[in-house]
Amino acid sequence: MAEVAPDPSLLIIGGGGETVSRPLPDSLHVNGGDGTYSYTRNSYFQRLAANVVKERIKGAITMKLDVEKLSSASNTIYIADLGCAVGPNTFDAMQDVIHFIQQKYTLQCPQSNTTLQFLVLFNDQPSNDFNTLFTSLPRERPYYAAGVPGSFHRRLFPESSIHFVHCSYALHWLSKVPEELLDKNCGAWNKGRIHYTNAPNEVVQAYASQFAKDMEEFLCARALEIVTGGMMTIIMPGLPNEMPYSQLAASLMYDFMASTFMDMANEGLISEDEVDSFNLPIYTPSPAEMASVVEKNGHFSIEMLELTNPASLVNGPVDIKAWVIHVRAAMEGMFIKHFSTGIIDEMFDRLTKKLFMYTEQVESGYKDRTQLLVVLIRK
Amino acid sequence: MAEVAPDPSLLIIGGGGETVSRPLPDSLHVNGGDGTYSYTRNSYFQRLAANVVKERIKGAITMKLDVEKLSSASNTIYIADLGCAVGPNTFDAMQDVIHFIQQKYTLQCPQSNTTLQFLVLFNDQPSNDFNTLFTSLPRERPYYAAGVPGSFHRRLFPESSIHFVHCSYALHWLSKVPEELLDKNCGAWNKGRIHYTNAPNEVVQAYASQFAKDMEEFLCARALEIVTGGMMTIIMPGLPNEMPYSQLAASLMYDFMASTFMDMANEGLISEDEVDSFNLPIYTPSPAEMASVVEKNGHFSIEMLELTNPASLVNGPVDIKAWVIHVRAAMEGMFIKHFSTGIIDEMFDRLTKKLFMYTEQVESGYKDRTQLLVVLIRK
Repeated sequence: MAEVAPDPSLLIIGGGGETVSRPLPDSLHVNGGDGTYSYTRNSYFQRLAANVVKERIKGAITMKLDVEKLSSASNTIYIADLGCAVGPNTFDAMQDVIHFIQQKYTLQCPQSNTTLQFLVLFNDQPSNDFNTLFTSLPRERPYYAAGVPGSFHRRLFPESSIHFVHCSYALHWLSKVPEELLDKNCGAWNKGRIHYTNAPNEVVQAYASQFAKDMEEFLCARALEIVTGGMMTIIMPGLPNEMPYSQLAASLMYDFMASTFMDMANEGLISEDEVDSFNLPIYTPSPAEMASVVEKNGHFSIEMLELTNPASLVNGPVDIKAWVIHVRAAMEGMFIKHFSTGIIDEMFDRLTKKLFMYTEQVESGYKDRTQLLVVLIRK
Repeated sequence: MAEVAPDPSLLIIGGGGETVSRPLPDSLHVNGGDGTYSYTRNSYFQRLAANVVKERIKGAITMKLDVEKLSSASNTIYIADLGCAVGPNTFDAMQDVIHFIQQKYTLQCPQSNTTLQFLVLFNDQPSNDFNTLFTSLPRERPYYAAGVPGSFHRRLFPESSIHFVHCSYALHWLSKVPEELLDKNCGAWNKGRIHYTNAPNEVVQAYASQFAKDMEEFLCARALEIVTGGMMTIIMPGLPNEMPYSQLAASLMYDFMASTFMDMANEGLISEDEVDSFNLPIYTPSPAEMASVVEKNGHFSIEMLELTNPASLVNGPVDIKAWVIHVRAAMEGMFIKHFSTGIIDEMFDRLTKKLFMYTEQVESGYKDRTQLLVVLIRK
């Protein structure tokens, strides 16, 4: 499974289909001109939301990253983007981070003649398309570039070799589906569903505990790799504390997917067993949950942990067709492994129709403040 | 142009088609059984030749590499393989180098409790198939792995960040065809030829000076990247001092290629202009030439610089068919860019027939001691 994909929580809103997630299919592009639904007239809120995260990261680097100390042993700063996919978002993010670090260095050492150098380590699963990533690297870039294949739930880099880690829309992917979900004799058997939306507590708990396990592995690996004083920024889907997951607009997508598959099982197009044995390895933690796993791990101090608005959030109606295309681009691989291709086409057709039928419900789902921004410093 | 390909100087000898070069097409594999031409009965000389280089590199690391000093700042050793292609040879080479460095460390610091860590940076052109490289990485490996896309004639890594560089069968590729060869008003216009074999002195000089320029760029970039005391090992085709290039068996291949293209031009299958404007960007230096460019650069001390037998050299007749397949696998891309595909098929068919007709000449070409082994230390 590639740790590259966006999440249905990134709703795509009519009239300005840009999101911060990746990879977008070619068919998704912003509207031209300057009409009612043009990007020009509707991009203000998107820019605002994207800028909020960018400004928060800039603030964190300016206030909390001791660049002078990090660069005292060597003038090279090593930066990793975990779950980088194929660009171009990773290039923009890396460019921004480097810019902020350079600004902080000038602030700390105004008299210095040293020019900082940067090596960016682009990480993703070995099955990621690194060829595309490498051939699309910006020709003019203020850094040396390397690709690092491997799961970020395990060690990727030598001890104390990294100064800054960025991880955007990747950590919501679990390392695997919780095993209990497939055990028919267990309370967490996830019959008739493909996710924990509206599932019994045992199912939700199985997901939550897999997330906690994955995060502990992730944090332990990073704790060994990041130097003392090094920073890690995490952006991922988030759930407001105490809010049931089913209240999120995103959860509707999974619910409708499951009910679509069940309709198809009832019509004999697939077996019920196929649906029962399929589960999406995706989890959306609350800020409290995230804080708890980081504190339990103990190697990082929490400098920032808050919910922000996803960049795709604008004040318009949800563009259901674009949303489904977007989600399909991200998740199709997983479905294809389990179901046959013909089934997938049919499911997504039916899903789109179903979402159109329940537009009101989609619109009423909770959308803003569903993006978690975490900034950690290695103790 | 991928800096990955072998060179026709790697003759493939009947009965044991293994060479040290890459990438081999699947159709090339060693003969089984234990008959007259089996690998079992004919691999002794190959093993001997390959082992000579391996033993020489082991000797250089043991005698000349101060691993204790290199690992004093951090216990991670950074190793780069430049022009690594897609494996598996690069994996074997890196495994060997790491093993020798570990042995040397134990020799230098027998009481140390420190375990050295290694990061291997696999470099090749951005067009190299890094996806294949990454998915075929050995599962159990004593190093962290990264891919670094880019031409090794330019900077690839941060300043003073590399301890050991390996570069095998890559530096004979020039960064470009010398421009003079295409100037009809210049003595170096390479009419009717595709290489400097049996060419006027001006052509040979144009190639030699491009090689010197490329090597200077290569050495300057590496001088900035390799730490003081760091080592670089280079393996590439080499020409005995004072020997004209045309005496090498390898040069016959280029001569026959050119004459085949000219036959086809005479028959109207291609234009003469197409042949005149095509030149192979490949150069084979002598030890004296190599020593001269390294000394002129001034940043490295020469610890070893000698001709060895290529690993493909065994005492049997040349397997012409396998040789042509091997060369085609390496060079086809360049031909396709210039000529049309149908033309290439025809040329290689005719080339094979021609080489068969001149078997005696092929056999009499100079073959042994045509591999240059260079070991440098960053001053």
